[in-house]
Amino acid sequence: MIKERVVWFNGKLVPESEAKLSIYDSALMFGDMVFEMTRSFNKVQFKLEEHLKRLYASIKYLHIPFAIDMKEMEKYIYETIEANEPLFKEDDEHRLMIDVSRGTLSIYENIKNIHKGTNIIIADFPLRWTTTGMGKLFDTGINAVITSQRAIPAHLLEPKVKNRSRVHYLMANIEASKHKGKNNWALLLDPDGFIAEGTGDNFFIVKDNVIITPEPRNILRGISRDYIFDLAKPLGIKCIEKNIGVYDVVNADEAFMTGTPFCMLPVTSINSIKIGDGRDKVFKELIEEWSFWVSVDIEKQIKDWDKDNKDSDGITPYSFKKERY
Amino acid sequence: MIKERVVWFNGKLVPESEAKLSIYDSALMFGDMVFEMTRSFNKVQFKLEEHLKRLYASIKYLHIPFAIDMKEMEKYIYETIEANEPLFKEDDEHRLMIDVSRGTLSIYENIKNIHKGTNIIIADFPLRWTTTGMGKLFDTGINAVITSQRAIPAHLLEPKVKNRSRVHYLMANIEASKHKGKNNWALLLDPDGFIAEGTGDNFFIVKDNVIITPEPRNILRGISRDYIFDLAKPLGIKCIEKNIGVYDVVNADEAFMTGTPFCMLPVTSINSIKIGDGRDKVFKELIEEWSFWVSVDIEKQIKDWDKDNKDSDGITPYSFKKERY
Amino acid sequence: MIKERVVWFNGKLVPESEAKLSIYDSALMFGDMVFEMTRSFNKVQFKLEEHLKRLYASIKYLHIPFAIDMKEMEKYIYETIEANEPLFKEDDEHRLMIDVSRGTLSIYENIKNIHKGTNIIIADFPLRWTTTGMGKLFDTGINAVITSQRAIPAHLLEPKVKNRSRVHYLMANIEASKHKGKNNWALLLDPDGFIAEGTGDNFFIVKDNVIITPEPRNILRGISRDYIFDLAKPLGIKCIEKNIGVYDVVNADEAFMTGTPFCMLPVTSINSIKIGDGRDKVFKELIEEWSFWVSVDIEKQIKDWDKDNKDSDGITPYSFKKERY
Amino acid sequence: MIKERVVWFNGKLVPESEAKLSIYDSALMFGDMVFEMTRSFNKVQFKLEEHLKRLYASIKYLHIPFAIDMKEMEKYIYETIEANEPLFKEDDEHRLMIDVSRGTLSIYENIKNIHKGTNIIIADFPLRWTTTGMGKLFDTGINAVITSQRAIPAHLLEPKVKNRSRVHYLMANIEASKHKGKNNWALLLDPDGFIAEGTGDNFFIVKDNVIITPEPRNILRGISRDYIFDLAKPLGIKCIEKNIGVYDVVNADEAFMTGTPFCMLPVTSINSIKIGDGRDKVFKELIEEWSFWVSVDIEKQIKDWDKDNKDSDGITPYSFKKERY
Amino acid sequence: MIKERVVWFNGKLVPESEAKLSIYDSALMFGDMVFEMTRSFNKVQFKLEEHLKRLYASIKYLHIPFAIDMKEMEKYIYETIEANEPLFKEDDEHRLMIDVSRGTLSIYENIKNIHKGTNIIIADFPLRWTTTGMGKLFDTGINAVITSQRAIPAHLLEPKVKNRSRVHYLMANIEASKHKGKNNWALLLDPDGFIAEGTGDNFFIVKDNVIITPEPRNILRGISRDYIFDLAKPLGIKCIEKNIGVYDVVNADEAFMTGTPFCMLPVTSINSIKIGDGRDKVFKELIEEWSFWVSVDIEKQIKDWDKDNKDSDGITPYSFKKERY
Amino acid sequence: MIKERVVWFNGKLVPESEAKLSIYDSALMFGDMVFEMTRSFNKVQFKLEEHLKRLYASIKYLHIPFAIDMKEMEKYIYETIEANEPLFKEDDEHRLMIDVSRGTLSIYENIKNIHKGTNIIIADFPLRWTTTGMGKLFDTGINAVITSQRAIPAHLLEPKVKNRSRVHYLMANIEASKHKGKNNWALLLDPDGFIAEGTGDNFFIVKDNVIITPEPRNILRGISRDYIFDLAKPLGIKCIEKNIGVYDVVNADEAFMTGTPFCMLPVTSINSIKIGDGRDKVFKELIEEWSFWVSVDIEKQIKDWDKDNKDSDGITPYSFKKERY
Repeated sequence: MIKERVVWFNGKLVPESEAKLSIYDSALMFGDMVFEMTRSFNKVQFKLEEHLKRLYASIKYLHIPFAIDMKEMEKYIYETIEANEPLFKEDDEHRLMIDVSRGTLSIYENIKNIHKGTNIIIADFPLRWTTTGMGKLFDTGINAVITSQRAIPAHLLEPKVKNRSRVHYLMANIEASKHKGKNNWALLLDPDGFIAEGTGDNFFIVKDNVIITPEPRNILRGISRDYIFDLAKPLGIKCIEKNIGVYDVVNADEAFMTGTPFCMLPVTSINSIKIGDGRDKVFKELIEEWSFWVSVDIEKQIKDWDKDNKDSDGITPYSFKKERY
Repeated sequence: MIKERVVWFNGKLVPESEAKLSIYDSALMFGDMVFEMTRSFNKVQFKLEEHLKRLYASIKYLHIPFAIDMKEMEKYIYETIEANEPLFKEDDEHRLMIDVSRGTLSIYENIKNIHKGTNIIIADFPLRWTTTGMGKLFDTGINAVITSQRAIPAHLLEPKVKNRSRVHYLMANIEASKHKGKNNWALLLDPDGFIAEGTGDNFFIVKDNVIITPEPRNILRGISRDYIFDLAKPLGIKCIEKNIGVYDVVNADEAFMTGTPFCMLPVTSINSIKIGDGRDKVFKELIEEWSFWVSVDIEKQIKDWDKDNKDSDGITPYSFKKERY
Repeated sequence: MIKERVVWFNGKLVPESEAKLSIYDSALMFGDMVFEMTRSFNKVQFKLEEHLKRLYASIKYLHIPFAIDMKEMEKYIYETIEANEPLFKEDDEHRLMIDVSRGTLSIYENIKNIHKGTNIIIADFPLRWTTTGMGKLFDTGINAVITSQRAIPAHLLEPKVKNRSRVHYLMANIEASKHKGKNNWALLLDPDGFIAEGTGDNFFIVKDNVIITPEPRNILRGISRDYIFDLAKPLGIKCIEKNIGVYDVVNADEAFMTGTPFCMLPVTSINSIKIGDGRDKVFKELIEEWSFWVSVDIEKQIKDWDKDNKDSDGITPYSFKKERY
Repeated sequence: MIKERVVWFNGKLVPESEAKLSIYDSALMFGDMVFEMTRSFNKVQFKLEEHLKRLYASIKYLHIPFAIDMKEMEKYIYETIEANEPLFKEDDEHRLMIDVSRGTLSIYENIKNIHKGTNIIIADFPLRWTTTGMGKLFDTGINAVITSQRAIPAHLLEPKVKNRSRVHYLMANIEASKHKGKNNWALLLDPDGFIAEGTGDNFFIVKDNVIITPEPRNILRGISRDYIFDLAKPLGIKCIEKNIGVYDVVNADEAFMTGTPFCMLPVTSINSIKIGDGRDKVFKELIEEWSFWVSVDIEKQIKDWDKDNKDSDGITPYSFKKERY
Repeated sequence: MIKERVVWFNGKLVPESEAKLSIYDSALMFGDMVFEMTRSFNKVQFKLEEHLKRLYASIKYLHIPFAIDMKEMEKYIYETIEANEPLFKEDDEHRLMIDVSRGTLSIYENIKNIHKGTNIIIADFPLRWTTTGMGKLFDTGINAVITSQRAIPAHLLEPKVKNRSRVHYLMANIEASKHKGKNNWALLLDPDGFIAEGTGDNFFIVKDNVIITPEPRNILRGISRDYIFDLAKPLGIKCIEKNIGVYDVVNADEAFMTGTPFCMLPVTSINSIKIGDGRDKVFKELIEEWSFWVSVDIEKQIKDWDKDNKDSDGITPYSFKKERY
Repeated sequence: MIKERVVWFNGKLVPESEAKLSIYDSALMFGDMVFEMTRSFNKVQFKLEEHLKRLYASIKYLHIPFAIDMKEMEKYIYETIEANEPLFKEDDEHRLMIDVSRGTLSIYENIKNIHKGTNIIIADFPLRWTTTGMGKLFDTGINAVITSQRAIPAHLLEPKVKNRSRVHYLMANIEASKHKGKNNWALLLDPDGFIAEGTGDNFFIVKDNVIITPEPRNILRGISRDYIFDLAKPLGIKCIEKNIGVYDVVNADEAFMTGTPFCMLPVTSINSIKIGDGRDKVFKELIEEWSFWVSVDIEKQIKDWDKDNKDSDGITPYSFKKERY
């Protein structure tokens, strides 16, 4: 049995601490790497096919040479999970990180002993790392902070391509962390002034029992976002895409964010203005439905994991250390 | 004596092929890494202080925790060069790549055996790698191709911060490589439609004996760019910053690009429209002056290096393999 | 019988080679002329009423004085066709070009012997001229090239008014002709970065069996474009208007252009990235349906005409000579 | 002696009333024609070289094939003037209109008896036509009307290329003609909201004895505009380029327009708000200086010509008939 | 019985002529006041709840401290109406103006005898004041004038918050008043060039029996606007929100404005271009339906009131004196 | 002697607490009021003429009818000061607030006993009110907070016209007050992403001994701003206008704000990033020079006034109560 988690790395399983990329890699030269991050429910990967489809779309858009078909990728993924499972606790879930970079730029190719060509990486670690400190947000809700950092429009840098050139998201996180109070998550406007997305999350409001989310233009088209449409249907709740502004959020009945690790979290204020009456009726229906289909009480699972954690104020999404800036 | 070039990596000299960053590093998560790339003339680093100042400005802008002062950084740089020099040919120049990343995101910090905190990297390799195929451009000139990919305005993603979130530059390079003919380099307009910069180069025109370069708003403020102002002065040539459009380039007397590795290269056409009469009078005065001050015949040096190279069509700046897309 | 095709010109039928406008005409001073270009199927004009309605809308928008009603215009059109028919081959179709210009500017009105007031022109020539070299595109498909030339937004210059101030379309054609490879047609983004239109063609994608075309804002509202909606209905295919970006095209199942002369042509790649799997299922259903309703095998007709042509590489829409730039 | 003015047309002198372009010409298909309009003072062409240089720049920008050099063009121009002079009154000035179009699109090239290839046209008519009704404007001044029609930014349609795709200028003229009162000339803002230009005129303000004119970005760079800089120098008046808004015009001491036919006209109000105190000190100094250098009393000449005219309200620049819309 | 109309002012009924705000109030310092203006039909307030909801949304958006609940506000409103009714004529309707300002800025709070804290004002006056001169517009229709003044996008100044920082609307009114002819009302484009709204009115077109109104982004979401959707439903007329440009208006079958005081008025031309055939079929159906539900012949009532007025040319909405500029 | 400060109000001196405007005034309807706020040094008004000139420019721009000339206005101003002086402490300075509104809208003109026509108001109160809490900022400096609220571009709402339609400035203040830490003042970007201004203050940086301030486009052209240019000259410090971004501020040597009440205050950080080394060399030279010319130690005066104040954290400029939102 392995003693350290392993990462699938260009065909080999290597120890997690050795999963590294050369400083000459295009990923580190140009932010030229696409990725997906998934999760399991009860150890079963959720919407893996959708994640892989999006990965392939990203690869194609960036013209990264790539010859492995989807079936084969799936095989490698399951190999990786299987290898790591013995090191996972019983109540752990598998969070995968799949990275694909173009590889070393040609001018560096005569360096010996470094990988040439596309890099493919499948990492696998406990989801609880990512959700640290999020448990209490199911109760308090997020305060969405409109940052002066705006989303970059798709024709300049395509957010639908899930890629690593996104230091502007980090800048938005830093900005939001300077807002007074707790539970502040960045929410970006696009340059037209409409709500775009969080820095790793899609945004929804509920108004008069209709779920509304921004048109999928200047945003990542989240897989959890799509699933909300699926969940709403049998519940008889209309779910539409529409330009929304801060005014619409202020006057919404409810609001929430979606993201793969936590599925859904309520947003209870925007720029510290309270949204709705705090009952989050539609949010609760949706997460209950979601929990039902995946046979996991999503909120409870994250809260249980958080019991082990010493307190965190969960400043910002997926999170750098508070003291760092 | 070492057998492989070494890289200064968080305080240690490690073999170049082992200079790698963890897949959990913020650099690989968010393109969250700043950098500088320098060069030597006759083995003497050029404008090192200016490069370091810009590096520190980038670090500050991104709020990366960083405690090493500039003197100390210089010391490490010279240690690195000294260690590698025995492996350099007599006619080689030292190209440094200095990278600073924020380090592993906090949620991954319980992974064992991976570096915590800011990463500082000083790599050192022969400049001739970078200038491969550029020798002939002194004769043919570059064909600047206005790409549909535009520069991102500074308030959305600051190009003056030299950072790795720049896959859009790579996209522009790919686009330019699809233009008919040879020697195509991408030239980006900013969203207002003015010339911004190349994907790693600054752009100049000469008109009526005045050197004109775009206002330093939506561009990297190149150190070679600054040096042009210094060189022009004693030559009695006026050098100004001004909004310029494609029309101005088409009707210029001369045009050129500047960049650290090659210093200056003539641009003889834009979108395949010829610029000027091909005599490049001001270009020649400037590069002669530059060569004089650094005691290196810049053009000759690059051409000499290219003799060793099998033919390359030098598609695009600092270059990925042609066959890759 | 006439020996040369004739043009209806302000009430008279004049030989085609004498159909000319004074250099003092507003059309030549300001690009101040609106127009329509139609086609027949089996010699029967297609959607003539729709073309005339759009012509009248253009005339109204530009405040061109115009007193002839639509019935009368139709009469003149049929007179023109009738006069020319003897010179048309049996397998020819009638392509009409209807031009309306405001006429000579008032300051030139004391020039003798030149027409005063609105000019109305109805020309009629074989459609096969326009489709030259398009036959093979039914097999190879078009490569849509996103040009740096963008569409002008409607509030600055209204593309829904079919008018002659459109040298920017020609510039886009020239730009596309410089793209490597063959079959390159320009595809313009609007200033928001969404797909607008070709330089004389509307653009569609098919995704998950839904036909999607850009919202009719910064584009000409093509009559062939409208007809796609009509054709899709009985085929049970949903057809909608929506903002689409390059990402959507890259990940579409199919794409195609529509235009009066060729009806529909498949677009099989964008910026040389392949679209879909090449089977063009929906395209084929639509063109078959279209062919059925007009009793002409559209693809075959154009291919047959092309047999007579010496090879052409059909560079760009409706086409200036390749060697010209 | 000729009985009708002649036009130099592709190498021949043809009667003015026969100077016409085929409806299949690219000029009439795409507004694809560049041009210059000049004037004489005392029968001597003014700044002809500057006009020709700009013409050649326009031709180059649009990739129009053109093989005649500037000396040759000058020769043809003088031939044309010489031929027409006998028909000009003693107090007439020669207004030249030089047009260059790409010629018939290739798909129409099998039409017999129409010109193939680039068209070159040199027309020559009395300047007094153009200045009709302007005499009184030296006294009343122009009321500049900011239209809702805005200038098109240069990256979408380059106004520095003097071309015929400019129906939006005509639209602005129509809009201005609907403003209450008389002497309304359109003044266009660019999309950033700065003053750009009139629809055939450049705009200046005078503030604290400094002459200010918009930066030459989204405008035609007028030859009269350049001459203002020349005239101001010896008068000791500073002349600069700068972004100006409506506020700056409202609070200017003086304002004026420049254009080839009339040289300079005072602008005494904007949107009917009075500018300055009506003394137009700098305007008078400049036009006096200009008159001196060309040995023509510019204002008097235009006023004298207007005596022959029956009254005109000179609605809009270079003018279509009022009753037409 | 009172002799002068009264205004509810922070809890007291004060004579209308004494209803004033301190010059140190935030309303007069920053335009920092929100408001609603309502009307009655047959003395019964129309859609009062909707107006109050919008008022509360405005208050919340601007962070104005406010502790009175909606029921209480209603009570005060009815008290005000009741107090004033004796001074109203039998055929008068009650127009309410409800103002809420933040109150005196803190730095002025030590001024004695001025109100501290939020100001709440309920004024009540005869609706006929507001509709003065509008009677004839039911016959002639409005000429919508596209002004160079554009709407401010919502992310810069939120028009959905009904607030007093709107001098740009007044500027648009002044601009429209300078258009030739009568009945000119300003119609503003948003910065993208789409129709936004009038300066106190929403805009609709009818095309092919569908009612179309701009998306509710850069506009006030009018309560009369919403009511059109309600009225259209039982009439079987589709009513949709969509981006529309001037072209769409020019080619519409009908157009109209809605606003609380007049309910609906036909727009029969835009920039003096006639819209439709003047029959206004859908307009008539809607206003008839509206009149039915409120038991008031809306058109007749306004026309009757106008009989008492000496002639007015009703220049611009809700109207300052003509001679004032 | 008066017992309460008085306000010059349409020709009469009224008690300050009775200086009020009718709720029907255009100022309260449309934010349609222009203003100036001045200060004295040693009881002598500073730059009064410049303030009045700007006031007249604002009045003209908004077409407000106004017949009083500048001399007369000055007379009324001095009358007001003289009347109030007895109530001012010896160390007080006179802060004037001059308001001009268009007056009651015409539809309300039949209301009895309310002022008709333009309102002119001259208020006069102790400057120390305004500078409350600013004393300590000379030591700590301001933290400039880039808000998501951006400046409105001048072509939509002219900030050079000092007017009351500016609730967006208040919104920016509220936003800045939510930033962590103290001494946060809002700093607005314009829509192009350049620094515009504070919400009542102009902004400067110092870099390499050059003073740089934004181009005067989308800002109020402050009178203190102009004075910096005057002061810098004799000190031999260059002072220029230039587009600057956040990057330039982060890397500046110093930064400061200017405003009439406090003259100059240092800005020592932006978004909590420290600017320069804290020595504020140029700032000190300038304020010393300024103090010299006005014979007042500016910093000391404000600090002395603050001694009387109970502590305030001076949240935001000219300040509403903290607890209010």
